Amino acid sequence: MKLKKDFNTVAILIIGNEILSGKTQDSNLNFIAKRCNHLGYLVKEVRVVRDDEKQIIMALKDLSKLYIHVFTTGGIGPTHDDITAECVAKAFNRKLVLNKKAHELLINHYKNLKIELNESRLKMAMVPANAKLIKNSVSSAPGFKIKNVWVLAGVPKIMQAMFLEDIEPKLNKGKKIFSKSIKIFKPEGDIAKFLSELQIDNKNIDIGSYPFYNPPNIGTTIIFRGYENNNINNAIKLLCKHLTKAKIQFLK
Amino acid sequence: MKLKKDFNTVAILIIGNEILSGKTQDSNLNFIAKRCNHLGYLVKEVRVVRDDEKQIIMALKDLSKLYIHVFTTGGIGPTHDDITAECVAKAFNRKLVLNKKAHELLINHYKNLKIELNESRLKMAMVPANAKLIKNSVSSAPGFKIKNVWVLAGVPKIMQAMFLEDIEPKLNKGKKIFSKSIKIFKPEGDIAKFLSELQIDNKNIDIGSYPFYNPPNIGTTIIFRGYENNNINNAIKLLCKHLTKAKIQFLK
Repeated sequence: MKLKKDFNTVAILIIGNEILSGKTQDSNLNFIAKRCNHLGYLVKEVRVVRDDEKQIIMALKDLSKLYIHVFTTGGIGPTHDDITAECVAKAFNRKLVLNKKAHELLINHYKNLKIELNESRLKMAMVPANAKLIKNSVSSAPGFKIKNVWVLAGVPKIMQAMFLEDIEPKLNKGKKIFSKSIKIFKPEGDIAKFLSELQIDNKNIDIGSYPFYNPPNIGTTIIFRGYENNNINNAIKLLCKHLTKAKIQFLK
Repeated sequence: MKLKKDFNTVAILIIGNEILSGKTQDSNLNFIAKRCNHLGYLVKEVRVVRDDEKQIIMALKDLSKLYIHVFTTGGIGPTHDDITAECVAKAFNRKLVLNKKAHELLINHYKNLKIELNESRLKMAMVPANAKLIKNSVSSAPGFKIKNVWVLAGVPKIMQAMFLEDIEPKLNKGKKIFSKSIKIFKPEGDIAKFLSELQIDNKNIDIGSYPFYNPPNIGTTIIFRGYENNNINNAIKLLCKHLTKAKIQFLK
């Protein structure tokens, strides 16, 4: 089965055993998802894989075929378990080479810090041949881009700087996606039928229904998303008209 | 490329637009990952997909082939965007049928609450033919299991109750995985070479290296995992011996 490759779809590939063992709560997915949403890109899929060559290569091949952009996080540091650059090179049949510009960046960075640029650190200048570097304003060691894959650090502060400062200005802005959320203090089952009809009558927006359950607070968060604010507002008006007696809270 | 299906490997499939739009920070991955780790299962892969039939079916087919167990979260409520049960039925060529036991559970639940069991709510008793139900002690509407796929609710409180109360007792315990973490206040690049040698000399454990960067706190968290506590302790001793001058913190 093949998925259509839409003009504005992206995927995120999170690489790292620590997420999959539950030792670390990932926050990179949520950050990139929010930024993509803001930029008008639709995140269609996320995969989280271990620091495992076969898994990383398989995910890279799958996702780069299916989506316009792929953002990876993790595995580009100096230690033995940082194998992302090597895997990206293999996935795209490129050699892993010492990148001159990356090398210079590291030389200057460690010179300023009076720290030795040892063999381990030099590994961070090894990137697939003909990759384009992604600036790292926090700790210098760059990310890189090859084909439609953007390879970022896993440390949130560094990943965020790379994304905001160097990637966002290079992405074509998609069509802005508007979004509004309301909280209804009624269980999903009470409003499901009306919501379903509302979705059928308003195909130009996406209506999502998410129950919350923290007794005595039981109810449903409804998220409206679409390319026109008017369409969203109209649907919300209709829903509120239907729910005259329910407690409703408009979220930011 | 095919991955080996090991005896203790599992995958998690998180279903829901709200995670991919960044509106909601997922917490189900981390919960299931921690429990699996505790039980001796290795979470090898996580996928997050939209409420999209093609995507859900493709992920279900891929993951159920590759891993011993697959845990899905989300999309089994009463609203129009809850399509998981339908997709699971399609993925495994089963009919979606009104499950008698699930129907009874819902009848009793809503009778007690004096709430109408309407058509929308009845949808929660529609499960693939011959699926086994998973108990929901929070809000009655059950999850279900078909082949090696366990289908759970998306609301964390409900998902957690299902997992702890009904799934864990049914899982064969894997070989317990021990894990210890230490925080070293030295950048990764300083210890990378030694760590790499330590990993080569200690193939029976897994040594993960994760930088943290919150100036003035800069350093590396090292996670040791393995089937024997002794092997982990020996490796930690060797590392500490190597790092006599560094500040080290033992984590819980």
